[in-house]
Amino acid sequence: MEHDMSPEMQQCMKDCHHCHLTCLHMAATHCLEMGGKHVELAHMRLMLDCAEICQTALNFMARNSAQHAAVCRACAEICRACAASCEQLGDMQECVEACLRCAESCERMAAMG
Amino acid sequence: MEHDMSPEMQQCMKDCHHCHLTCLHMAATHCLEMGGKHVELAHMRLMLDCAEICQTALNFMARNSAQHAAVCRACAEICRACAASCEQLGDMQECVEACLRCAESCERMAAMG
Amino acid sequence: MEHDMSPEMQQCMKDCHHCHLTCLHMAATHCLEMGGKHVELAHMRLMLDCAEICQTALNFMARNSAQHAAVCRACAEICRACAASCEQLGDMQECVEACLRCAESCERMAAMG
Amino acid sequence: MEHDMSPEMQQCMKDCHHCHLTCLHMAATHCLEMGGKHVELAHMRLMLDCAEICQTALNFMARNSAQHAAVCRACAEICRACAASCEQLGDMQECVEACLRCAESCERMAAMG
Repeated sequence: MEHDMSPEMQQCMKDCHHCHLTCLHMAATHCLEMGGKHVELAHMRLMLDCAEICQTALNFMARNSAQHAAVCRACAEICRACAASCEQLGDMQECVEACLRCAESCERMAAMG
Repeated sequence: MEHDMSPEMQQCMKDCHHCHLTCLHMAATHCLEMGGKHVELAHMRLMLDCAEICQTALNFMARNSAQHAAVCRACAEICRACAASCEQLGDMQECVEACLRCAESCERMAAMG
Repeated sequence: MEHDMSPEMQQCMKDCHHCHLTCLHMAATHCLEMGGKHVELAHMRLMLDCAEICQTALNFMARNSAQHAAVCRACAEICRACAASCEQLGDMQECVEACLRCAESCERMAAMG
Repeated sequence: MEHDMSPEMQQCMKDCHHCHLTCLHMAATHCLEMGGKHVELAHMRLMLDCAEICQTALNFMARNSAQHAAVCRACAEICRACAASCEQLGDMQECVEACLRCAESCERMAAMG
């Protein structure tokens, strides 16, 4: 897969995959185990939203799709919202980092068109 | 599901679902059966892209997500590109219509924020 | 899409779509709003599991895939588990019905191979 | 994510992710570029089927779902079918290996229940 993709796209795919896995796993383990603020509607939705849009962005790049920029733009926006929600909870640093790294990668891909 | 969603969102979910199914089905049956221009790289990728982003937009709306506008914006853009690609092939009117209807619905949702 | 699929498969696709939407929507609205037993780990995971496997089964059938029986078998099993979990909570009748109907449809498809 | 999952599950998630990416990427690049036997209906459907069920199995494990065995069983079956289809084409060794490794991992997870 490496020979026909730019290093930026390869990095973005890794960041999307990591963010997808981290958000989905944390939502379905840590958040559900903690309860309280961790299962509040807006936070849980954002975690699931972020996991899904990262997966979709990854799949567009895996297809080498000409349309990946539109999805990366949406992905970056949602990752930033999810990072902010995780930051507020205070014990989700792993998720904050995965979201911010993915947002930056996706912004780079969106800017490159 | 009907009582807690705007009529516009309900309509958009229907249009996304219809476009998702139509693109995925046509790609994996009609296009693969026809071969030739129907399996050209750019067209097949667009069909799969369109099916996937419609599915993702539908899921965001099913979660009543505050982030659905960003995904609907991307979805509308990709649906328009897919409609244009199908229009060129000439025998994919069902797909053209599903894509255009979904694009309009998603543009409405994106505008409403 | 109607002309090249058996009536049983068309029905199963409708049941999978309805169960997918119902589980995802109920998980992200009703369950998160209610809290308490509705956001317990095993229940919420089952709701997300059920939504996802129904989506996957639907996509296999939309592709007219020769492999759909294996996915329908898994789908039926997970739908039954989700129906049982919803039954216990007592106020999720819409979900129970969607899961049971989908389980029966998928069992029929799995048996037809 | 590492501390709360068995080494077998962690390995299976890696194998599912690798197989998902490899099949989706190869289908949308190599196969569409080659044309001919590479875009035959049965082969292309299997590639998309395999990519999707691997993604679904990965997501079930990311949620630490009690239902992952049913999905891993279906995934193993579909990976073996995809490996056989790729083997016949002769120039898809990367895909054959990814599918076989994933099939073995998923069979292990299914057996462990």
